[in-house]
Amino acid sequence: MTAPAAADLFALDRAAQDLLFRAARTANTFTDEPVTDAQVAAIHDLIRYGPTAYNGQPLRVLLLRSPESRARLLPYVSSSNRAKTAGAPLVAVLAADVDFHERLPELYPHRPQARDWLADRAARAEQARFNATLQIGYLLVGVRAAGLAAGPMAGFDAAGVTREFFPDGRHEALLLMSVGHPGPDAWRERLPRLPTADVIHTL
Amino acid sequence: MTAPAAADLFALDRAAQDLLFRAARTANTFTDEPVTDAQVAAIHDLIRYGPTAYNGQPLRVLLLRSPESRARLLPYVSSSNRAKTAGAPLVAVLAADVDFHERLPELYPHRPQARDWLADRAARAEQARFNATLQIGYLLVGVRAAGLAAGPMAGFDAAGVTREFFPDGRHEALLLMSVGHPGPDAWRERLPRLPTADVIHTL
Repeated sequence: MTAPAAADLFALDRAAQDLLFRAARTANTFTDEPVTDAQVAAIHDLIRYGPTAYNGQPLRVLLLRSPESRARLLPYVSSSNRAKTAGAPLVAVLAADVDFHERLPELYPHRPQARDWLADRAARAEQARFNATLQIGYLLVGVRAAGLAAGPMAGFDAAGVTREFFPDGRHEALLLMSVGHPGPDAWRERLPRLPTADVIHTL
Repeated sequence: MTAPAAADLFALDRAAQDLLFRAARTANTFTDEPVTDAQVAAIHDLIRYGPTAYNGQPLRVLLLRSPESRARLLPYVSSSNRAKTAGAPLVAVLAADVDFHERLPELYPHRPQARDWLADRAARAEQARFNATLQIGYLLVGVRAAGLAAGPMAGFDAAGVTREFFPDGRHEALLLMSVGHPGPDAWRERLPRLPTADVIHTL
C-alpha cells in the first residue's frame, strides 16, 4: 500500500507508520520462531507508559506457554479460532484486574483517597475493563513495534476463561491475543475501512 | 528518560518509541496553535487500519470546534477538567456507534450474516464499547505520531454528554480527548508504572 500524501503530516516517519498501522495485519498463521520473555518484557516496558485513568494500569497479561495451559484454553475458544490458538508460538490472555484500586496509593500518590472513590465494585469493574481495553490498544501497537504480528481474538467464552484461569475472582478476561512471526498465508486481502467522513464530524 | 537496553529488541527505532510512549505525556495545558482538519483526517486515515472484531470500527469522533459546542460540553465536565477542556485548541468526544453492525455487510463482506448475529442490542452495545475503546488506544498513539499531545479525560458525565450530543440514541460517549501542542507546565512529574513482574505472569 502506498502511503498517502497526508503521511507527511506526521512526526513519525512513513516506515514506522506502515509498521504499526498501514502494513500491519492480524496474523492467522505463525512460524515456529519463538517469542521470548525478553521481547514480552520489552513490549510491556514500553507500553506501560500509555495513559490510564488515575494511572491505575488495570491490564494483566497471562502468557500460556506450557502445552498444559494451552490445552486448558482450547475448550473455551470458538472453533474458527482454535487452529490459530493451538499453532501460535505465544498466546496471551488479556484481563482486567478489578481490584486495581488497591495499588492507587502507590500509583497515584498525590491523591491517595482515589482508592476510596472506587469502593463500589461494579463501577470499579467498568473502569477496570475500559482502561485495560485502552491498554490492549497500546499493547497491540507495542507488539507491532517489536516487529511481531498480533492476532487479537474475541471469539471465546470470556466467562469460562475467567473461571478457568482467574479463580481469585478479581480478574476478568477481555481478549485473547496470539503473537508471533507471520506464517504462510497469514492473512486475506485487507478489509475495507470506513472513510473519515463517516467517522469524524464537527460541531 | 534514557531508553533501556531492551529498546534494541524493537523494529521501531528508539526515537519513535520515545515519541509514542516513553517521552509522550498527557498534556494539561496547550498553546494556541490550532489542530487542523487535515491533521485530524491524516490521524484517522492511519489508525483506521487497527483491528476490530468483525472489522466493525465502531468508534465515532465528534470534534467540538465552535465556541457554542464547547460551551455545551463544559457543564458535563468535572471541575478539575474544566480549564483544560476550555483551553485546548481541539476537544473531541469519542463515542461508540451501537448500531455499527448495520455497516457489516460492507465491512465484513465474506460473512454478511454477522450483522444478524448482533441483533441483540445489549450484547452489541458491549461489543461497540469494547472495540471503540481499542480504537481509542490506537487513536491516542496516532495523535502522538502526528507530533501532538493528547489529553484523555474520563472525568465527565458520560450519560449527560451522550444525551446532549447524540440525541439519536445510537451512540454512547466513552471519553473526552483534548488535542494540541503542549503549553507551559503541561504536566507534572511522571507517575510510577507497575513493574512487568506485577503485570505479566506465565503458565
